[in-house]
Amino acid sequence: MFSKLKNIFIGRPLKSSDEGDEGNLLTKLQALAMLSSDALSSIAYGPEQVVLVLVSVSAGAIWWSLPIGIVVLILLASLTISYRQVIHAYPQGGGAYMVTTENLSPKAGLISGGSLLVDYMLTVAVSVSSGADAITSAIPALHPYNLHISIVLVLILMLMNLRGLRESAVSLMIPVYLFIASTVFLIGFGLLQLLLGNLSYHATAPIGKSISGVSLVLLLRAFTSGSASLTGVEAISNSVPFFKTPKAENAAKTLAIMAAILGFMFAGITFLNYWIGIVPVKGVTTLAQMAQTILGNSPIGRLLFYIFQLSTALILAVAANTGFSAFPMLSYNMAKNKYMPHMYMEKGARLGYSNGILTLAIGAILLLLIFNGNTERLIPLYTIGVFVPFALSQTGMVVHWRKQYGKHFLKYSVANILGAAICYTIVAILLLFRLRDIWPFFPIIIVLLWIFLSIKNHYNKVAKQLRLNEEIERVDYAGNLVLVLVGNVTRVSAGAMNYARSIGDEVIAMHVSTKETQEKDEEVASEFKQYFPDIQFVNVETSYRNIIRPTVQYVTKIARGAQKKGYTVTVLVPQFIPSHSWQNMLHNQMSLKLKYFLRWHENVVVASYSYHLKE
Amino acid sequence: MFSKLKNIFIGRPLKSSDEGDEGNLLTKLQALAMLSSDALSSIAYGPEQVVLVLVSVSAGAIWWSLPIGIVVLILLASLTISYRQVIHAYPQGGGAYMVTTENLSPKAGLISGGSLLVDYMLTVAVSVSSGADAITSAIPALHPYNLHISIVLVLILMLMNLRGLRESAVSLMIPVYLFIASTVFLIGFGLLQLLLGNLSYHATAPIGKSISGVSLVLLLRAFTSGSASLTGVEAISNSVPFFKTPKAENAAKTLAIMAAILGFMFAGITFLNYWIGIVPVKGVTTLAQMAQTILGNSPIGRLLFYIFQLSTALILAVAANTGFSAFPMLSYNMAKNKYMPHMYMEKGARLGYSNGILTLAIGAILLLLIFNGNTERLIPLYTIGVFVPFALSQTGMVVHWRKQYGKHFLKYSVANILGAAICYTIVAILLLFRLRDIWPFFPIIIVLLWIFLSIKNHYNKVAKQLRLNEEIERVDYAGNLVLVLVGNVTRVSAGAMNYARSIGDEVIAMHVSTKETQEKDEEVASEFKQYFPDIQFVNVETSYRNIIRPTVQYVTKIARGAQKKGYTVTVLVPQFIPSHSWQNMLHNQMSLKLKYFLRWHENVVVASYSYHLKE
Repeated sequence: MFSKLKNIFIGRPLKSSDEGDEGNLLTKLQALAMLSSDALSSIAYGPEQVVLVLVSVSAGAIWWSLPIGIVVLILLASLTISYRQVIHAYPQGGGAYMVTTENLSPKAGLISGGSLLVDYMLTVAVSVSSGADAITSAIPALHPYNLHISIVLVLILMLMNLRGLRESAVSLMIPVYLFIASTVFLIGFGLLQLLLGNLSYHATAPIGKSISGVSLVLLLRAFTSGSASLTGVEAISNSVPFFKTPKAENAAKTLAIMAAILGFMFAGITFLNYWIGIVPVKGVTTLAQMAQTILGNSPIGRLLFYIFQLSTALILAVAANTGFSAFPMLSYNMAKNKYMPHMYMEKGARLGYSNGILTLAIGAILLLLIFNGNTERLIPLYTIGVFVPFALSQTGMVVHWRKQYGKHFLKYSVANILGAAICYTIVAILLLFRLRDIWPFFPIIIVLLWIFLSIKNHYNKVAKQLRLNEEIERVDYAGNLVLVLVGNVTRVSAGAMNYARSIGDEVIAMHVSTKETQEKDEEVASEFKQYFPDIQFVNVETSYRNIIRPTVQYVTKIARGAQKKGYTVTVLVPQFIPSHSWQNMLHNQMSLKLKYFLRWHENVVVASYSYHLKE
Repeated sequence: MFSKLKNIFIGRPLKSSDEGDEGNLLTKLQALAMLSSDALSSIAYGPEQVVLVLVSVSAGAIWWSLPIGIVVLILLASLTISYRQVIHAYPQGGGAYMVTTENLSPKAGLISGGSLLVDYMLTVAVSVSSGADAITSAIPALHPYNLHISIVLVLILMLMNLRGLRESAVSLMIPVYLFIASTVFLIGFGLLQLLLGNLSYHATAPIGKSISGVSLVLLLRAFTSGSASLTGVEAISNSVPFFKTPKAENAAKTLAIMAAILGFMFAGITFLNYWIGIVPVKGVTTLAQMAQTILGNSPIGRLLFYIFQLSTALILAVAANTGFSAFPMLSYNMAKNKYMPHMYMEKGARLGYSNGILTLAIGAILLLLIFNGNTERLIPLYTIGVFVPFALSQTGMVVHWRKQYGKHFLKYSVANILGAAICYTIVAILLLFRLRDIWPFFPIIIVLLWIFLSIKNHYNKVAKQLRLNEEIERVDYAGNLVLVLVGNVTRVSAGAMNYARSIGDEVIAMHVSTKETQEKDEEVASEFKQYFPDIQFVNVETSYRNIIRPTVQYVTKIARGAQKKGYTVTVLVPQFIPSHSWQNMLHNQMSLKLKYFLRWHENVVVASYSYHLKE
């Protein structure tokens, strides 16, 4: 039954050869759609986060979002230059984990990898909760269900990815270009209205006004929140191999186009937000407020507003989906290096790395539950988790250039040094001024590092222990002892006895009797002797209600004796198999439990004899 | 590791004989503490529910809670008389399930049983969410975490019960008598203040004032909500055997005392609520508002208020706990009658019916999540779920008297006819006027009935199929074929081969190779032939990535051939066991999966050879 359900939700299994046609190469337009959603969608929450920090002092402080915005734009330009360099240096696609591992050290690579794993969970959580905000800003009646909407979005993405979502660029182009078009239209229309004098100046305070309570610390905090908009810029540099030739050139151009669009949208939204004088209110995002003000209340205006909110929600869903592509790939790579469990390397029925997809979905949902779907509290963690691996990978690039060009490396690594400097600065600001929000990052990373290293250590030990020597020991046993566990005397026991007689030189039937079932136990014993007079019957008495412990004890005893005689020991567990698998629920899982506990005993083979019911 | 964790949270396993001293008999004072929490705690939400329905029209309608309260008190008196009768008729303790099954029909019994199972979940959900309300009424800062508090309360109760909470009457006497004392004090003090003129009359409208919008339907709806306070009255009649002798007499007296206390508290709270003019507000229960008003804002008054809220929360937790005693017992009884899975009959390590406890906790948490911890929406369902089995069991009692006394049964069954009439009336009112709230009850009960009957049917079929005939078939096999699954050539395979050679007359090693692993597969084949030249090696090729399907197919083929020759077939799955159980996570669970799928194949014994790692 379970496998039927699985087929309905996940789809029929695919053959390995079905994978071929996924490798289509991307044009710039397609690549922009597939790789920029994470970066572009961040303008749905980035500018708002800056304003949120500023208004914690006073609404008048909002004008500071303009200079902060300019700094963010400068950083965006620098990061873009820096990542164009990465593209040319690692045309095979250099993720932060690989670049750091190769150029710095495996441990630094693990810090990168661990941060990114957590970060992809945060990407999903932040994107879906912002998406839910966009939906409930348009439909206020849904506001109490924000968290529910977020969780349902994660589950939908999970199912789609377990089905093996073909990321056909075409299907992704619609939401991404719809969002670009509607945002550019909104900003353009807003500026036009402004020039025509239809959008009056309502700023909470003029630029340059001194606001009491605005300190450098506050501005730095606001800046770090704004820098959340810079996340996702690296995506293109990780995916160079998927571009049409000339790969590096096309990728670099695409990155430049994306940065230009992102910069324009960030600047436009920050400016209009200031001009209109939008102050955050509960239940409606500042972006939605802005769209409402600019588009007005006419029927057409309302329609455009809904389209805009829908496109925002859609691109955020697509952005969350990038986490679902990236997390399983990264965990596959780390599992290949033996830092994560093998199960992350198993491809599922539909050729996706199902375990990675499930882990990501569970992690994101837990984050949503812990933070109550609150974007504002997730952002600082998200930012530190992004900029630590960025800083490391940019440093790695500098080392890379040094290795390649020796003394003259400086010429090549200017951009990366700039990028690294920016990332370290942001990390330092976060450490100094937002430690209260980001501290969980550090225990998490330390625990993850410890786990990665323990796993590697374990795999190495196991491999060493399993390796065969040149000479292998051939054991010729003197005979076989079969111990059959008997609960009741039924057709199952009859079949099991026949089998045991066939493989065993010695057969013992064992029954555990508890105090309460004494009467029934005597009946079992006499019935057994009547049907199987030739087989030794042992009744083990126990004062526990649980029959597992006495069984294991008796098996241990028997095994010790058999070993001395040079006999093998087989414990045969008879069981019946109902005609439908769901009916298993109705029967004691005692045989499963027994088998589980018996496997901990050495020199004992545990075998199941199954009798199949017809009805 | 898991078993260590289990020992920490659940405690070390107990022997069956440890159970003896649980059977201490109860004095009336102790019994009142143990059996009345459900009924008494309902005044924490019952009176409020009446008011909530009335104010949906207008605050002025609150005076109607007085006449409604009088009707509820009359019902309470009648139900008390009726249940005193039950006590004398079923001194062995007649739960609704047993009384209905015996006197009406097994199917009616299943309706009773099913309703009660759902109802115990609702008891837990309603009680913990009311308990959370009591806590957050006292500490408003916790208000946003109402649902979290409820769920944590359920989990705490679950763990306590899995540990095998010794319901020492002493430990339960504290919360119950604290609640009785503090509530009686509150009502007494309130009335005193009123007589002294310190508590002024603020009723929202005088008694008898005509309020537009008040209809008979509204009053009946309010009445059904108030009748939620009557739930729990039956608890004493189910537990007669636990009383000291004379059992029936003591139980009947205890019931009368409890009813008197409940009636006094219900009347007092309803009256003071009306006099003070309390209107429900969000975040503070009406009972907490009343306590605040009566006790005032002096430091002593605040302290008493906190004590009162604490005692309310405590008795509600104890009431929720009655669900945890009753649900596992009822499911045990139904499992014994084969209407529920056997697993509900297994006692856990600490002598509690763990599966029942877990099922109840999961059900209650699901209800809390579905209804967002909202007491108001759970109450109507709770009420129908209680009164349907009550009505059936009262009817059953009438039948019982008729069987016992023939024609003269009327004399004996007056009280039960009265009780049944009340219950049927309440059920009818619920059906007619609250169908929108209670409809889920019907599909749930129908589905449960169907499940119960299917389970019974299944168990009967299985028993028939397993029964041995007089003559049993003795099969003497011609030989044994052992098929060993080989993934890699390691020490595990070496041990498995030795064992296979010992029990098998014919040994085949089988390896599945997928397209992608071709190179590695060739290596495995050549290595195998080098180490085990005497054993036949079969390489099964597949185009699926999954190795389960081709393995099962090959095993099926081999089994068919062996059966013709009169051979047994054993599939040997070699596996290694890490030195710590948590390390299992790190290894492919392929052997488990294979064993699971192979068990569906008849005439094949599946055996595991375990190689134990030392480090």
